[in-house]
Amino acid sequence: MCQLLGMNCNVPTDICFSFEGFRRRGGLTDHHRDGWGIAFFEGRGCRLFLDAKATIESPVADLVRHYPIHSTQVIAHIRKATRGRVALENTHPFQRELWGRYWVFAHNGTLEDYAPELSPLYQPVGDTDSERAFCHLLEGLRRAFPDGPKEEGALASTLRRLTADIARHGVFNYLLGNGTTLYAHCSTDLHFVTRQAPFGHAHLVDEDLTVDFSRLTRPDDRVTVIATQPLTDNEAWTRLAAGQLVAFRGGEAVADL
Amino acid sequence: MCQLLGMNCNVPTDICFSFEGFRRRGGLTDHHRDGWGIAFFEGRGCRLFLDAKATIESPVADLVRHYPIHSTQVIAHIRKATRGRVALENTHPFQRELWGRYWVFAHNGTLEDYAPELSPLYQPVGDTDSERAFCHLLEGLRRAFPDGPKEEGALASTLRRLTADIARHGVFNYLLGNGTTLYAHCSTDLHFVTRQAPFGHAHLVDEDLTVDFSRLTRPDDRVTVIATQPLTDNEAWTRLAAGQLVAFRGGEAVADL
Repeated sequence: MCQLLGMNCNVPTDICFSFEGFRRRGGLTDHHRDGWGIAFFEGRGCRLFLDAKATIESPVADLVRHYPIHSTQVIAHIRKATRGRVALENTHPFQRELWGRYWVFAHNGTLEDYAPELSPLYQPVGDTDSERAFCHLLEGLRRAFPDGPKEEGALASTLRRLTADIARHGVFNYLLGNGTTLYAHCSTDLHFVTRQAPFGHAHLVDEDLTVDFSRLTRPDDRVTVIATQPLTDNEAWTRLAAGQLVAFRGGEAVADL
Repeated sequence: MCQLLGMNCNVPTDICFSFEGFRRRGGLTDHHRDGWGIAFFEGRGCRLFLDAKATIESPVADLVRHYPIHSTQVIAHIRKATRGRVALENTHPFQRELWGRYWVFAHNGTLEDYAPELSPLYQPVGDTDSERAFCHLLEGLRRAFPDGPKEEGALASTLRRLTADIARHGVFNYLLGNGTTLYAHCSTDLHFVTRQAPFGHAHLVDEDLTVDFSRLTRPDDRVTVIATQPLTDNEAWTRLAAGQLVAFRGGEAVADL
């Protein structure tokens, strides 16, 4: 199974601590050696680092570990190939533009008998079910709101309907973000923790490493981390239910859609 | 003025030597400190590294120097901001998807009184004239060939017409690529050199560094490097004429459009 990692914050934050545990699942503490990627939103801009190597051997992962990029939204993925060969074009996250914003998507799971008729609006470049589903979601959103939605609630209900259609085909845990809102959908495995004052210590599951967030944060900071499996063993992670779609904004869950 | 760098090859090749000279123009041998980026095509996939820092101070540039990514097409850009503030979303190259392929674009120059009415098909995320021109080109290509062009010549003549329309607004040196074909348009400054057997030595302009390509290549290799100004001082670079649009494929110029 692939591994998902997301972060949504109210102030730009580096993901070095969470990434330290996460990357070890790419070939060391778990068997996901078929590439990985991470997208950082900085303002309206987005940086997407991709590598078809295992994170544990990847020079790009070393860069991400040592270069504390401050971002308000991060989406990362470690791949265990199930559909589509190991290749850069099949490496998550995927990125497209919609309504003058970048959208980024990463998926964990496998979709069966899933071959939607896609318009030329968004065409997959690789051959994964995941990228197809991403194109399907964006096409559906664009058709529903050609010039962008007037309000967030309308977008959410369309996204919910599109997601339910696709989820009928199999396991569809995903993270979808546009730099402001991060949407997390759970079919089987997705957990999140929200860190805010009073901040405490966190200890990684995958490595004996502890951080004291009270020394690294200001009182108003708020950060939510979302992952396939909890990354720390001494914090209260919330498990999403099957079929649950949650929107995160400003570092916290704002809507259960 | 910004700096452009492109590479088109018949076999995957690393760009470390050319990048070594090129990156020094980002803050050391020239004054372009407003961000930089580089896109590597690997098969149908594309990796885009962006940094709003000067190349000479950028940890991402250090990665690119030391991690020899083998690619058949590269587009890189060092920015001197003229339109649009220094920000990640204004950093070239830009990337979009068209006809199930990634397209990448970088521009050198400034367009005056350029405010095309763009459809929702491709919307700029940042506020540069360059990204607007890229959206304009892709929208024009998509409208002319909704399902993709049947033959390369038809695409080329449409691209030529769209380019001429935009170039009326100012300086429009650009590199545009889809991983297979690299299009280079010159308004004022663009040079290229094609390296093929018999391979010789090349010596950088920006640093006292020489490479012997005969030791690094096979007899059938063919590589074209395109740059705003020649990167080496002992090779025969061809200067593109004002208004010239050239297509490179398989490491050589295949059409003067």
